[in-house]
Amino acid sequence: MVQLTPNPSYSLAIRIELPNRAGMLASVTQAIASVGGNLGQIDLIEQSRHVSIREITVDAASLEQDEEIIQAVKAVPDVKIIEIYDRTFNLHRGGKLSVNSKIPLKSQSDLAMAYTPGVGRICTAIAQDPEKVYSLTIKQNTVAIVTDGSAVLGLGNLGPAGALPVMEGKAMLFKEFAGIDAFPICLSTQDTEEIIKTVKNIAPVFGGINLEDIAAPRCFEIERRLRQELDIPVFHDDQHGTAIVSLAALINALKLVKKSLSEVRIVINGAGAAGIAIARLLKKAGAENIWMCDSKGILSHSRTDLNEEKREFAVKAQGSLAGALQGADVFLGVSVPGVLTPEMVKSMAKDPIVFAMANPIPEIQPEYIVSDAAVIATGRSDYPNQINNVLAFPGVFRGALDCRATTITTTMYLEAAYAIASLVSPSDLSAEQVIPSVFDKRVAIAVASAVQQAARLEGVARC
Amino acid sequence: MVQLTPNPSYSLAIRIELPNRAGMLASVTQAIASVGGNLGQIDLIEQSRHVSIREITVDAASLEQDEEIIQAVKAVPDVKIIEIYDRTFNLHRGGKLSVNSKIPLKSQSDLAMAYTPGVGRICTAIAQDPEKVYSLTIKQNTVAIVTDGSAVLGLGNLGPAGALPVMEGKAMLFKEFAGIDAFPICLSTQDTEEIIKTVKNIAPVFGGINLEDIAAPRCFEIERRLRQELDIPVFHDDQHGTAIVSLAALINALKLVKKSLSEVRIVINGAGAAGIAIARLLKKAGAENIWMCDSKGILSHSRTDLNEEKREFAVKAQGSLAGALQGADVFLGVSVPGVLTPEMVKSMAKDPIVFAMANPIPEIQPEYIVSDAAVIATGRSDYPNQINNVLAFPGVFRGALDCRATTITTTMYLEAAYAIASLVSPSDLSAEQVIPSVFDKRVAIAVASAVQQAARLEGVARC
Repeated sequence: MVQLTPNPSYSLAIRIELPNRAGMLASVTQAIASVGGNLGQIDLIEQSRHVSIREITVDAASLEQDEEIIQAVKAVPDVKIIEIYDRTFNLHRGGKLSVNSKIPLKSQSDLAMAYTPGVGRICTAIAQDPEKVYSLTIKQNTVAIVTDGSAVLGLGNLGPAGALPVMEGKAMLFKEFAGIDAFPICLSTQDTEEIIKTVKNIAPVFGGINLEDIAAPRCFEIERRLRQELDIPVFHDDQHGTAIVSLAALINALKLVKKSLSEVRIVINGAGAAGIAIARLLKKAGAENIWMCDSKGILSHSRTDLNEEKREFAVKAQGSLAGALQGADVFLGVSVPGVLTPEMVKSMAKDPIVFAMANPIPEIQPEYIVSDAAVIATGRSDYPNQINNVLAFPGVFRGALDCRATTITTTMYLEAAYAIASLVSPSDLSAEQVIPSVFDKRVAIAVASAVQQAARLEGVARC
Repeated sequence: MVQLTPNPSYSLAIRIELPNRAGMLASVTQAIASVGGNLGQIDLIEQSRHVSIREITVDAASLEQDEEIIQAVKAVPDVKIIEIYDRTFNLHRGGKLSVNSKIPLKSQSDLAMAYTPGVGRICTAIAQDPEKVYSLTIKQNTVAIVTDGSAVLGLGNLGPAGALPVMEGKAMLFKEFAGIDAFPICLSTQDTEEIIKTVKNIAPVFGGINLEDIAAPRCFEIERRLRQELDIPVFHDDQHGTAIVSLAALINALKLVKKSLSEVRIVINGAGAAGIAIARLLKKAGAENIWMCDSKGILSHSRTDLNEEKREFAVKAQGSLAGALQGADVFLGVSVPGVLTPEMVKSMAKDPIVFAMANPIPEIQPEYIVSDAAVIATGRSDYPNQINNVLAFPGVFRGALDCRATTITTTMYLEAAYAIASLVSPSDLSAEQVIPSVFDKRVAIAVASAVQQAARLEGVARC
């Protein structure tokens, strides 16, 4: 049974009143620790001669553990719980985004310039010269985050409303990491043609389209068509974001084990949007020996159940994931928790590289293979080498918007990956650091610059 | 020939260097005044022993006058122009809106709550109980401003990009006057069915839909269908915003002339979206004698060229606007500049009320009829009694969002109008003040409260 560690997603804030006696707070923290709660900040809210009011932040691993923590605190004599709140729910109340005016609007004169009648001059200028929409409106810095809610995180088909909190979070990341104004568009249709038409219809306001959490194989067609039919960049982050960051990490991991991309045999487990995109990008980067597996095993020529995208990667070999891994150099998992066993890793070639990227629970807990794998990466922040799309998409869009790119090309993906990889200097490179931290401020800048450069070289930059 | 007064939409900032001699600045301001420029702020930017650098803000009435002003300043001896910029264009560079995160995103723990894995708990909660989308996402405070760009201000069919600056301005007003997060959706289709489908498809993120600058008669069908098919308020501001504010002003104007709405004969000139909506709302409010005119004259039973909406208001009378106005008590113009003459106003009943709301140039310049009309209103900020939609839509949506209304009803429009009218106290009421100022902070609050109250009474409030 995989045990999750306490983390902020199950974080409680508990406000308690306790007598001012030596050891009281210690009894409370002791009680929390005894049931596995992870203590965060402890604030002193109020203190009188006899009592203190404190607010204690505690991370847990599950709702059940939250409940155990509350009971443990309740059981401490003389301690009164004043209020308990779920920090994650609290933070979401009212939503996470706001739309703001960049300009004060306090006088008739402000109104007359920003709105009627002055704005009419701007409208006319754009109608006469459509390119001016970039300089005189929000288009230049605005991205639509589009989902149909069909593949929300690892949670499945939650629909548009259920997907909205993720899209809001994504918009926050766009702002925080690249200064981009992103707005969530959650569609009440899951029909491919309807989605394409709707996105085309709302495109005029946006400088780019980020597709998100749309199920495979529908996502491939939607992205392909929108790329064809729109003159702004269209980027399906679940595919290309993951592919870019995986490639970046793999480039550095291979340096460590002194193998080359063209020689290694790579097994990709998971043949959905992310898996297919990773395979395509690795191939473009020079990988020559990729075996993909889905839940039924190796994508083999002999199988008759493969969709078009899967057929693209069908190989002669057939069999299970375990079979595929025998002698393989690299495992890239974008699948489900727990499918990789220590035995499978042991059966791989010398110095195996294991990227177990299923979220939030990886294909294998790193603890089990620490001594067998040369490099381990996951999607998690609590292990080394976090493969996180946030290393890619903010910089990719920053670069594309800054040169008003008409599209995003595979070369732009490749250059983004090389830029990310290059930020880990030879002296910093280690099995525990093949990829920069998500909070490394250089990443978005370097990616944006590489992407913009590539766009110019490929002739897709408008300016 | 109608002469426009200088206004901020043609505002220049002129940076000049001039010798430190008595009378130098006076010569410059004199030069500007001599060609009709309206001086605004004069900033001292830098001063040395011999020269000063100043920036002068000047309003003009047209681009031609802007040019005259520049030439006049250039002609002043010893004055050097350093820089000139068009303030309205300057203010629009980069667009007028930003999308911001409400929550800091600086640590792993912030990320883990606002994004993965924590956000998954919020998504699941909403998927299990769809009403939670209101409390846990931006939906509760977010409005889409939807246009197809087919009737942008008085400028016509500029298309979606040309309409965007107006929609951005509208979003600014939503924020400034009611704290609402509004986002522009400019559609690249002008097909009624496509528009309806697209708005339905993107509706999940929004708590309300504000339709804007969509041409008649298409706008009627779009609004009707969306009202039917969506469970959030849909409001075509060009119709109902204008109708609400016109009714509010008319209520107060009628008090002044001691006539009642049910007795007066009202002539509405302009039978587009605004005209039809005004007629409908006035009827609902008790008006019994409304004659509408379009560019061909009175909407008469005898005419065969009327669309469905126009037929709704056809009367027995026939003839021209001039004919319609003979003996009429009220003129409401939502048409084109200059169609009303002083003679027509003179032919009206005693104490005529004239609302000449064409923008930016009214049906008649108020100066011409000051002594003939009892009350005059326009859409302009530089005359008394500005009929401006911003008095209605922010409060209407604030009220509708706050009670999570499923729709907006005519009763809600009526109550909004009564609320606006009631803010002009009997002691303040005068021919020059039948409507509150757009900067009167009480308006949105009073409207929101009236709208919310009406929603509850009508059973369309969700909470």
